[in-house]
Amino acid sequence: MLSQFSSELIVATRGRGLYEFTSEVEALLRKAGFQTGLATLHLQHTSASLLIQENADPEVRRDLERFFARLAPDGDLLFHHTCEGDDDMPAHVRTTLTAVNLSIPIVGGRLALGTWQGIYLWEHRLASHRRRVAVHFLGE
Amino acid sequence: MLSQFSSELIVATRGRGLYEFTSEVEALLRKAGFQTGLATLHLQHTSASLLIQENADPEVRRDLERFFARLAPDGDLLFHHTCEGDDDMPAHVRTTLTAVNLSIPIVGGRLALGTWQGIYLWEHRLASHRRRVAVHFLGE
Amino acid sequence: MLSQFSSELIVATRGRGLYEFTSEVEALLRKAGFQTGLATLHLQHTSASLLIQENADPEVRRDLERFFARLAPDGDLLFHHTCEGDDDMPAHVRTTLTAVNLSIPIVGGRLALGTWQGIYLWEHRLASHRRRVAVHFLGE
Repeated sequence: MLSQFSSELIVATRGRGLYEFTSEVEALLRKAGFQTGLATLHLQHTSASLLIQENADPEVRRDLERFFARLAPDGDLLFHHTCEGDDDMPAHVRTTLTAVNLSIPIVGGRLALGTWQGIYLWEHRLASHRRRVAVHFLGE
Repeated sequence: MLSQFSSELIVATRGRGLYEFTSEVEALLRKAGFQTGLATLHLQHTSASLLIQENADPEVRRDLERFFARLAPDGDLLFHHTCEGDDDMPAHVRTTLTAVNLSIPIVGGRLALGTWQGIYLWEHRLASHRRRVAVHFLGE
Repeated sequence: MLSQFSSELIVATRGRGLYEFTSEVEALLRKAGFQTGLATLHLQHTSASLLIQENADPEVRRDLERFFARLAPDGDLLFHHTCEGDDDMPAHVRTTLTAVNLSIPIVGGRLALGTWQGIYLWEHRLASHRRRVAVHFLGE
């Protein structure tokens, strides 16, 4: 019989960068106790993202930062919305180019992630933030 | 007992730009009557996107347009697929860089959106269109 | 009564490019037998993407390749993570700018795709790979 489990995770960030929280999601899933099902994560913000990426070489994450810093640099004169700081509009752009929700099947009591996949909260603002992620599991 | 509810929304656009339709999705959700669950939206087109972004300062949306106009300008000589107009291939690129589906948990009878998050249909073509969004709710 | 169906698809790629596998997903859906519900696909890799795009003119896919090749060229001197080849970090960037999971409602026993929408595995590496996609259907 299918049932569901709702929760929330808080990811505390210390400024721009990628923060892995795969183990926090897995811990919630163990609490929910589903063997098979579907996990959905939704980030309740517009200047940070959810990203599934390689959790092996940390240089990959630094290169992703370098790429986005070139594509949408802080203080870019293109932007008119500057009242919240030079890094605010680039943060909205980065969020727009990535995602705020993820859907991952649950198989054998675990998220069906690949060997090298980790779940990241990507903070795009320079300052520290507490980011809220709504978590929904459905399964049995 | 979990059950599901399927529907469709039509978003009429008047050319390129972001059209918020959060309240239309919320109205469908009230009709479905679920307190807890999962909402999925799927846009049935390849030259428009679904986007969750800030619904406060409208300048944010104009800056997103400026950014994409610089990144994939209409009439870009890079593109060979030009038979449907100068804005067609840039529209496919914008769709590719964003998303056509969204998954949002339902909590307390509402979409679990953040305070500043709105759901937008992003029309990437210059002409008006009627865009179809398949809506699926699951919950109880 | 809602139930679920889990499976896996392997998409064999012959290097960089877009590989449509809509019919393989539809075949699994017929096997699951759901008339109404939700389909979720998750790609278990960090250098390839899942994409819903136009399945009419193949020039659209070639233009998407041209766009990404300009945006994140192989051998770009920006990147430090080069140990796995000139095409590896651009592949991670392309994956980051697109998606690894898709959520599509099921309506009338079929995926609720638009007329011109196809489901693609986008291989971003130059070499051939066998890519695994976790598939989850929920419905009745």
